[in-house]
Amino acid sequence: MAMRIVRSITSMRALAERWRRTRARVGLVPTMGALHAGHLALVAAARRASDRVVVSVFVNPSQFGPREDFARYPRTPAADARLLRRAGVDALFLPAVAAMDPPGGATVVEVGGSLTRGLCAPFRPGHFRGVATVVARLFAIIRPHAAWFGRKDAQQAAVLGRMARDLHFGIAVHTVPTVREPDGLARSSRNRALLPAQRAAAPVLHEALALAAAAVRGGARTRGAVLGPARRRLARVPGLRVQYLDLVDAATLAPASRPAGRLLLAAAIHLGRTRLIDNRAVRAPR
Amino acid sequence: MAMRIVRSITSMRALAERWRRTRARVGLVPTMGALHAGHLALVAAARRASDRVVVSVFVNPSQFGPREDFARYPRTPAADARLLRRAGVDALFLPAVAAMDPPGGATVVEVGGSLTRGLCAPFRPGHFRGVATVVARLFAIIRPHAAWFGRKDAQQAAVLGRMARDLHFGIAVHTVPTVREPDGLARSSRNRALLPAQRAAAPVLHEALALAAAAVRGGARTRGAVLGPARRRLARVPGLRVQYLDLVDAATLAPASRPAGRLLLAAAIHLGRTRLIDNRAVRAPR
Repeated sequence: MAMRIVRSITSMRALAERWRRTRARVGLVPTMGALHAGHLALVAAARRASDRVVVSVFVNPSQFGPREDFARYPRTPAADARLLRRAGVDALFLPAVAAMDPPGGATVVEVGGSLTRGLCAPFRPGHFRGVATVVARLFAIIRPHAAWFGRKDAQQAAVLGRMARDLHFGIAVHTVPTVREPDGLARSSRNRALLPAQRAAAPVLHEALALAAAAVRGGARTRGAVLGPARRRLARVPGLRVQYLDLVDAATLAPASRPAGRLLLAAAIHLGRTRLIDNRAVRAPR
Repeated sequence: MAMRIVRSITSMRALAERWRRTRARVGLVPTMGALHAGHLALVAAARRASDRVVVSVFVNPSQFGPREDFARYPRTPAADARLLRRAGVDALFLPAVAAMDPPGGATVVEVGGSLTRGLCAPFRPGHFRGVATVVARLFAIIRPHAAWFGRKDAQQAAVLGRMARDLHFGIAVHTVPTVREPDGLARSSRNRALLPAQRAAAPVLHEALALAAAAVRGGARTRGAVLGPARRRLARVPGLRVQYLDLVDAATLAPASRPAGRLLLAAAIHLGRTRLIDNRAVRAPR
């Protein structure tokens, strides 16, 4: 069946409701478009577990800070539609900003606690509130049985899983492993903005996290022993600024004072005007 | 058909989903129990507009302040079930606090702006956040087509209407006129806590609002001319404390600097330990 392109909230709600009435399992992949192999891995996972798959493309203004890249965030609508059609998506949901977030709106969905205290949160005030609010809206409109998010945005996935459970949406939040370029760089819509020299340097982010993970697995006992070599690796790259590099508990995302249990290594860097994030799960040896 | 009593969130979700599958229109009346004629008017309105009616009874801890009356809020479960059965309700939803709001939860739904700046809001910090969050949860679990709220809690109804629209729940929020005792006192679960002398004095709240409304209709030009006589009427009652008495725009609930357009007169008083609220809509003459 042909992929439908749905722009109206009312039509999207009605379409999903018709599907639910036939007992179809509905899967949702929320995106901001500029789709790449990482998104297609989410779609493939949704496709396997669902009778109907909806992909939303919505560049959500409220999750960008005033000095962030909302205006220059890449938008490739024709290519997105082509990729999704080929991937067997049933509906592409393309709501307008004016419909999703009309003037006069006053409601936010906010996830507090340790999940939104560290990592990206202090550098992007309001970001996770914007993400939680827009995904709550998508959940309320579409009512999928499950939704898929990428592990590159590990903090986002944790926040949205918490939100879905806390508000009792009855929607399972799944994550899918990060898809990488052959040189290890995590696939990201923002990679398009890298200049050639920046692109050549970018895999260092993945390499630094791999160094830190090796230190954990090798029995490093302190944060310094885990993060020091990674930090030095990043410091060697001209024009690279580290926003954060952290070792956190994998479940709570609270900083780990020493390596123990299930951990997440996560970092954000700037290469020129482009901000890249990546992370890596690791378990400390007993 | 007999009324079902549903305690589990999962069962409630599944029951409402089965109803939706048959295209039944599902109506929801969220309450905190201790039901009275005001609630029954909500149920009757829901009954007229719905194929299936759910009434939830949940005394929501998160909407009570630390010094408020959560512990002594009246609970009359057997009488509630009897009244609802007689009113033709299809399901009574009685979730446990530990299921609705389990430890580790971190998500709140917050309505900002003018709706939550005045009236009850400054005196009950966190109250409307607690209300918006619990009703968002009920909406996410039950997915009714519409929900009914009483106009005695006009600010609550405005906040919840805003929340439902902003989050795109696709749920119509309706209000029902306040049901009153023969002497004008608004029906409220908290009236039970009034001592006889307090109960005898309580209609003054309604009378004071009627005085203020008469002043508006009579062409009073200033806030003072509207609220002064009402304030003096309340001041004559021994043991009565006025928490607020205000003239606000009916749509935004922002204080009206002078009487114009559609207005709401609203007040909260204490009689002993019992807090009572009431309000009255009025339109200023051209």
